Amino acid sequence: MRANSQGTEIEQLLYWLCKMPGFGPRSAKRIALFLLQNRGTVLEPLIQAMENARAKVQNCQACFALSTAPICSICGDSRRDGSLICVVAESSDVWSLERGGSFKGRYHVLGGTLAALAGRGPDKLTIAALVKRIADSASGLQPVQEVILALSATVEGQSTAHYLVDCLRPSGLLVTRLAHGLPMGGELDYLDDGTLAAALSARKPLA
Amino acid sequence: MRANSQGTEIEQLLYWLCKMPGFGPRSAKRIALFLLQNRGTVLEPLIQAMENARAKVQNCQACFALSTAPICSICGDSRRDGSLICVVAESSDVWSLERGGSFKGRYHVLGGTLAALAGRGPDKLTIAALVKRIADSASGLQPVQEVILALSATVEGQSTAHYLVDCLRPSGLLVTRLAHGLPMGGELDYLDDGTLAAALSARKPLA
Repeated sequence: MRANSQGTEIEQLLYWLCKMPGFGPRSAKRIALFLLQNRGTVLEPLIQAMENARAKVQNCQACFALSTAPICSICGDSRRDGSLICVVAESSDVWSLERGGSFKGRYHVLGGTLAALAGRGPDKLTIAALVKRIADSASGLQPVQEVILALSATVEGQSTAHYLVDCLRPSGLLVTRLAHGLPMGGELDYLDDGTLAAALSARKPLA
Repeated sequence: MRANSQGTEIEQLLYWLCKMPGFGPRSAKRIALFLLQNRGTVLEPLIQAMENARAKVQNCQACFALSTAPICSICGDSRRDGSLICVVAESSDVWSLERGGSFKGRYHVLGGTLAALAGRGPDKLTIAALVKRIADSASGLQPVQEVILALSATVEGQSTAHYLVDCLRPSGLLVTRLAHGLPMGGELDYLDDGTLAAALSARKPLA
């Protein structure tokens, strides 16, 4: 941020708003102006919400999803199927899958994907905790039977999936991944060749 | 925002992030996740910056621009030409014009543009204060001699400009507006017809 003549508090606010992903000087300016024009109605509650989230939100000790309790509501829900673990990269992926509501098992949040160039090796992710969690479950009431890798169909997501398959092989568990194919409502004309090829090779018989 | 099962602090944060202009559930989720993953490095300084801005930032008593002092640094700068007042809609317009650095006069921030449909009549803007400021200056050291209307070339901006011209007519001052024409680097092919017509009618002799 270029310094402007409007005093340090505004400069500081713009500087820190610019740190957010997808924010540039222009969007930071727009948001700062909006916040300062709506102090009582938006800025104050937003500060309070951020402060509360900062103080209360932690990672679930079992699945590492963001949670306001040491054990998140999904891991603490005895009606969820503990024999099914869905591995995702981020907490937001849990929210996306829960929105659909079709998955009844539990989650494991890796905390990102492997990215050698960015220095994110396997030790930066919760892979060791996943392996331990699976091993520990074998002596419990609900041993894990299937691990679903719900990772993005990107180079990073798929290389993380490959690495996980290697880590999980000794456990002898069923390891699956999400299907690749046409998205609902997707038009053939607008699909990339990779998706088309994947959808073709994974075609299903209709009759 | 649809409620999710991740506890109220995260929900609240998402709810308030969604209030920001240009934010939807998806961008709010991305920002919330980023903030919670970077608590010490971004979230805490951002909360502090927002809190400081909330407490310190006010409107300059002379020009109504956002300022950290009762009189902003531009109005308080004796080297600025007080006989020239540039009228803008928002404080961010002041920042944009100052970035260029070619204007040496003072500003007047209206606090928006006239918008009958949104219920923003002349009494919601600082028009009366502008007229009074000009009248008061007549008996001072630097009487205002020219008012530049730097308003957007939109229907709202131009109707506000027309209204201001009517308000300022009794003062007998020179009232000007920004030139309309080709933006620097603008290609004819990509320009709308309105801009082209304005540029054509305001053409300048070269030799």
